[in-house]
Amino acid sequence: MSDVKKVVLAYSGGLDTSVIVKWLQETYNCEVVTFTADIGQGEEVEPARAKAQALGVKEIYIEDLREEFVRDYVFPMFRANTIYEGEYLLGTSIARPLIAKRLIEIANETGADAISHGATGKGNDQVRFELGGYALKPGVKVIAPWREWDLTSREKLMAYCEEHNIPVDFSNKKKKSPYSMDANLLHISYEGGILEDPWAEAEEDMWRWSVSPEAAPEQPTYVELTFEKGDIVAIDGEALKAHEVLEKLNKLGGDNGIGRLDIVENRYVGMKSRGCYETPGGTIMLRAHRAIESLTLDREEAHLKDQLMPKYAEVIYNGYWWSPERRMLQAAIDETQKNVSGVVRMKLYKGNATVVGRKSEQSLFDESIATFEDDAGAYNQKDAEGFIKLNALRLRIAAGKGRQQS
Amino acid sequence: MSDVKKVVLAYSGGLDTSVIVKWLQETYNCEVVTFTADIGQGEEVEPARAKAQALGVKEIYIEDLREEFVRDYVFPMFRANTIYEGEYLLGTSIARPLIAKRLIEIANETGADAISHGATGKGNDQVRFELGGYALKPGVKVIAPWREWDLTSREKLMAYCEEHNIPVDFSNKKKKSPYSMDANLLHISYEGGILEDPWAEAEEDMWRWSVSPEAAPEQPTYVELTFEKGDIVAIDGEALKAHEVLEKLNKLGGDNGIGRLDIVENRYVGMKSRGCYETPGGTIMLRAHRAIESLTLDREEAHLKDQLMPKYAEVIYNGYWWSPERRMLQAAIDETQKNVSGVVRMKLYKGNATVVGRKSEQSLFDESIATFEDDAGAYNQKDAEGFIKLNALRLRIAAGKGRQQS
Amino acid sequence: MSDVKKVVLAYSGGLDTSVIVKWLQETYNCEVVTFTADIGQGEEVEPARAKAQALGVKEIYIEDLREEFVRDYVFPMFRANTIYEGEYLLGTSIARPLIAKRLIEIANETGADAISHGATGKGNDQVRFELGGYALKPGVKVIAPWREWDLTSREKLMAYCEEHNIPVDFSNKKKKSPYSMDANLLHISYEGGILEDPWAEAEEDMWRWSVSPEAAPEQPTYVELTFEKGDIVAIDGEALKAHEVLEKLNKLGGDNGIGRLDIVENRYVGMKSRGCYETPGGTIMLRAHRAIESLTLDREEAHLKDQLMPKYAEVIYNGYWWSPERRMLQAAIDETQKNVSGVVRMKLYKGNATVVGRKSEQSLFDESIATFEDDAGAYNQKDAEGFIKLNALRLRIAAGKGRQQS
Amino acid sequence: MSDVKKVVLAYSGGLDTSVIVKWLQETYNCEVVTFTADIGQGEEVEPARAKAQALGVKEIYIEDLREEFVRDYVFPMFRANTIYEGEYLLGTSIARPLIAKRLIEIANETGADAISHGATGKGNDQVRFELGGYALKPGVKVIAPWREWDLTSREKLMAYCEEHNIPVDFSNKKKKSPYSMDANLLHISYEGGILEDPWAEAEEDMWRWSVSPEAAPEQPTYVELTFEKGDIVAIDGEALKAHEVLEKLNKLGGDNGIGRLDIVENRYVGMKSRGCYETPGGTIMLRAHRAIESLTLDREEAHLKDQLMPKYAEVIYNGYWWSPERRMLQAAIDETQKNVSGVVRMKLYKGNATVVGRKSEQSLFDESIATFEDDAGAYNQKDAEGFIKLNALRLRIAAGKGRQQS
Repeated sequence: MSDVKKVVLAYSGGLDTSVIVKWLQETYNCEVVTFTADIGQGEEVEPARAKAQALGVKEIYIEDLREEFVRDYVFPMFRANTIYEGEYLLGTSIARPLIAKRLIEIANETGADAISHGATGKGNDQVRFELGGYALKPGVKVIAPWREWDLTSREKLMAYCEEHNIPVDFSNKKKKSPYSMDANLLHISYEGGILEDPWAEAEEDMWRWSVSPEAAPEQPTYVELTFEKGDIVAIDGEALKAHEVLEKLNKLGGDNGIGRLDIVENRYVGMKSRGCYETPGGTIMLRAHRAIESLTLDREEAHLKDQLMPKYAEVIYNGYWWSPERRMLQAAIDETQKNVSGVVRMKLYKGNATVVGRKSEQSLFDESIATFEDDAGAYNQKDAEGFIKLNALRLRIAAGKGRQQS
Repeated sequence: MSDVKKVVLAYSGGLDTSVIVKWLQETYNCEVVTFTADIGQGEEVEPARAKAQALGVKEIYIEDLREEFVRDYVFPMFRANTIYEGEYLLGTSIARPLIAKRLIEIANETGADAISHGATGKGNDQVRFELGGYALKPGVKVIAPWREWDLTSREKLMAYCEEHNIPVDFSNKKKKSPYSMDANLLHISYEGGILEDPWAEAEEDMWRWSVSPEAAPEQPTYVELTFEKGDIVAIDGEALKAHEVLEKLNKLGGDNGIGRLDIVENRYVGMKSRGCYETPGGTIMLRAHRAIESLTLDREEAHLKDQLMPKYAEVIYNGYWWSPERRMLQAAIDETQKNVSGVVRMKLYKGNATVVGRKSEQSLFDESIATFEDDAGAYNQKDAEGFIKLNALRLRIAAGKGRQQS
Repeated sequence: MSDVKKVVLAYSGGLDTSVIVKWLQETYNCEVVTFTADIGQGEEVEPARAKAQALGVKEIYIEDLREEFVRDYVFPMFRANTIYEGEYLLGTSIARPLIAKRLIEIANETGADAISHGATGKGNDQVRFELGGYALKPGVKVIAPWREWDLTSREKLMAYCEEHNIPVDFSNKKKKSPYSMDANLLHISYEGGILEDPWAEAEEDMWRWSVSPEAAPEQPTYVELTFEKGDIVAIDGEALKAHEVLEKLNKLGGDNGIGRLDIVENRYVGMKSRGCYETPGGTIMLRAHRAIESLTLDREEAHLKDQLMPKYAEVIYNGYWWSPERRMLQAAIDETQKNVSGVVRMKLYKGNATVVGRKSEQSLFDESIATFEDDAGAYNQKDAEGFIKLNALRLRIAAGKGRQQS
Repeated sequence: MSDVKKVVLAYSGGLDTSVIVKWLQETYNCEVVTFTADIGQGEEVEPARAKAQALGVKEIYIEDLREEFVRDYVFPMFRANTIYEGEYLLGTSIARPLIAKRLIEIANETGADAISHGATGKGNDQVRFELGGYALKPGVKVIAPWREWDLTSREKLMAYCEEHNIPVDFSNKKKKSPYSMDANLLHISYEGGILEDPWAEAEEDMWRWSVSPEAAPEQPTYVELTFEKGDIVAIDGEALKAHEVLEKLNKLGGDNGIGRLDIVENRYVGMKSRGCYETPGGTIMLRAHRAIESLTLDREEAHLKDQLMPKYAEVIYNGYWWSPERRMLQAAIDETQKNVSGVVRMKLYKGNATVVGRKSEQSLFDESIATFEDDAGAYNQKDAEGFIKLNALRLRIAAGKGRQQS
């Protein structure tokens, strides 16, 4: 294990990754570079500096990646109306490629030969970090302490801290949650605890980002979202940067009880797990994006997008953002978004994010043809007969030859 | 036009199809057989008998098809979690194949050589009726009066009624709605009127089947749905027939403000149209079905179902229920449903249908493996390294050879 | 019919389209512009000028579109390894979008309000011409004489010629073939005659572009094809323009008995038809393209291309080249071709086009890993255990819970 | 390693698996059960009995699985026209599920707790054997000696033999080939040696099952293949069992130089490899199956099959025969084969397997409609106008609103 000289660690500043700093130094006898990013998890990142310094870290990276995260990862993903397994908005999955990319870039800058992360050996995140790492720097060494060490219980971790003088108050700042949580600008997730029984209802006090529908205001909130080429660029007429859009929608959604989700999902590593998620802004955004597409996309490209989406979602969920197949799918998706511009009006009320209007200068909705009233010849109803007759021809021939008909 | 001897008409008992009876008799000098079905549209069908008799119809079919409709059409469709264009639950589309089938069966029974319907030349329903008709009886003659006649305005229709002594009070029973509506056990739809402006919000008094979320009870309703092989067979432990399931879920959903939808959709005949829908029971059912599948389906079959679903939805929307491709897709879907059994617990509250628990004797959720706690060796975290390494191999080789990496 | 002032006709110079010139002048009392293109059909196009002049045409377009045809239509299509229904290389389909585009461009240049073509009402070509026309000029009037006139037999056509002084020697230049044929640089096709019986073997003297395998040389021909970004740019080291590539491959293939095909296909208008095709160059090109991709494409993008290909083929076959869905698919396909460069060596021998070698500077083939000999640690065989274990996990859990296993 | 009591080994009787017998006995101190199957590899299996006995094996299974192999694995796969990466007929892949199934059944019969095989850690076969094993007996222990032992060179293997008195003449029966080969009724494969250079042409004396096209007879052979529900049941009118069909077609194909393939493929474990294959009967069968489908399948089910095929091929190639997704796809495929019956006539000549005729009582080819001659009203050409107009509508609306047109 002596061949690692320097390792870049995705460092949250919390207890677990602090233990990892020390464990890496000891086990690999190597230098540790910490990397802490603000991707909207809702906690200060600056305090990680002092903690890292206290652990003897000399190269400390602390960065605000919120805009890049939303602009280059969240928004492109939402252009595809991406949902995993019919429900999940991929809040955790989409943050990993950016972290992986920065880990590698920092490794290249600092001359590190390894990267490390605090994800367990049972989950998807290890896969996402490591696939990203290997794709961007094929010779990198990846160290996944949770798959290597024997600190497999909280007791052992605490003993390790005591033994190595790692200040345990790290973990006492807030009451230890019974849940395993992860957060970024797109969502906060909960796993473990009573959620391990899929029949058990999540407790109300678990949720952190949204009020319950019951507790939401009695009056609906209306909001207008302006799209340009598939991305939201303004809310109620105010131009916003990508991450500001999501921050504002999270506030609006959370206040109105929108975006809670409770599912059982299939992990890439092979087992089912139960997770709860709050994605207030994303839930609004998905609905709104579909609405602006409903006006501006051609039918066949829309249907093709829908057919490709589950694959695209799987690619991202499984950790293949930095892959040729993701780029290929993205090229197809982005090709369709050139005209996905306009305004969607939504009503937010007690858990409901409802589209109530949509308009666009690129609209393909043609009132003169769609109308039930006189269309002044814009559409010739007699055309329908030939259309139906030829579409029926193969079915008629088959039936005429005695084929199964029902 | 003298070659039609007898035509079976899909007859609602309303003004339009009553005019069609007379118009067919006159124009084709043929006998008309009426067929009126209760598929849960919420109106009495028996009154259609007297009206048909008054128009001189001798062969009158009035049938209760509610159970067949839900059991053989709605339920099979829901096994696929079918949604058209990300939003629409296909409430109108799924009723047409059954009507088409009965029209043809009645034509065969009565020796009729033609069928007729009251759908316009601009919509999807003409396609669905006629494709079904042709697929089941390839030599049938289809008469679509709205594509043929010149009664293109309400004034002309009324004049025709007066001229032919068709009692116009037919239409006065209820105040004429400004919307074009269609209903069956799965949904009620609204088109036309102010909805032809996609920016205009639907008026509250348009909606007929559900209260608004605002008007729904302050207390949530919890309900347990029991699935067997993909279909709901009991609600809160009470065994129900297929149509009773949907009736009960419609009541529960409608009372709690669930299932309203407002979309712009792409018609098969080529234009976009705006429609509003209420699908209270279906909305609950879809969520619940996904939840029971989340426990009982294998990951890869679930993902494959999701990839096939948009095509399956398109097939049904476009009117190809009676086609080889629908049967082929159905065979794949039904193959997956053998173990989709268990119970889903849902919370209904002011527009929200939320899954809060799911359990199944066929569950593939394995607590011993999924747990974040000690799993006693059920899962070997070290396996993950090899898993990731080999999955990364192609990416590493590419990166090692200088390929684009991001 | 008086509303057409000027019509652009796709004019071959043959008897049928000459009749159409006259019929359009007479029936629509309009001016006719003729457009004749060399797309490699193997007949002189210049003689069409005199014929058109003799018919009173004043605006005559005669163009050599061979390079544009291959470069902008054939090559992009081959990047997807496009085959319709497992066999057909789409030789006719791919020529239509270019003709449609030029018809519309000429209509715009000459102020014409209509276009016309000589395709029948039973085939795919009418659809391809007209979809292209409508997509590029939505208000254009399309005149399809074969769907309108009553010249439904050869006798009636000849009578019309005599009546209108159309020189019938037009058709006598070569002995009238019993087959309906179409040719361009990519292929020549045969339909009709004895081919209407799918059990009947095509007669040897039908084939025009290739010798039979029996008659081909006893010695194989080896050829090296150089690809750049998915397209062939040189043969045996000689740089060639797109159409020169195809001309040369047609010669090589035809001489060696390569590229004959005899199939029953499904037309877009609903019936099956039997066609024979000679695609000598295309057959070589398809094989070679797959071979260079086998070295240079990532596995997952290759598989995704294969999954999209049948849809892409259908889009082109059905006439939707000028559609958003084709552009969307093309964007995905082209994204993958950046590194599809290198050389493929092929052996041509009596009907066989066999790949015998391939090399590329962008090759992802890694001898050090692929070898059965000692790989010096490039690949750790122990990784395979974890890879298999986690991939098997979902199957093991299911089997452990008593699910169907075989 | 003391926890294995009895292991069932896939035993070829060759040197490598003989070493494995001894190594298992020694390393795991366990009983070894050998299983040797005739799946048409072209070598006697009975001699394996004496060899196993000499190694001290008490439970010896030797079985003729040829019919089961072709009937239950090869034929179902061919119903889908299955090809991996555009070229490969999956000859190796399709044999593994049957071997895995018998290994597990024998383990259950003999009370063994483990299975073992002689596949390396670099290839696909280990994955296929082990996924099958785990899927059918989730608690089984799998021993893959090539991933465990240190006999990593031929020298070490020979030393091991000498040390353990394993008769080395096992390997001298035939001159050691420079290639790694695998054979069964569907194909024989070659890897390694000079093939590790993708630019090098395979040597003529490598090929074992077919003559070269050059050496094939100067006269073509015609053959008629009778299909029932997608499978070949007779050749030239003679009813044959499944494996007899393939044996006969292998003979016919091999004699006529048919079925050689030389490709670079993507392994599931992540690298590219170069392989050569001879699949004489399969190559004929694939072509013939497509031909009978071309007459008897509906267009849309045919296209859907083509879209699903690459996924189905991937599932089999990757080793997931015993999976829910394979069963799901098979259900769809088999649903389409009910009417795939009839006769295909083929011409075999110097490497070419050409379809020259096809007929079926279930044919959907309708001469009366397809004809270019007068069809007596079977098809109304005027229907095409409406068909095209409505299919063009979305394109026209888009163009009318100024959208990109080309």
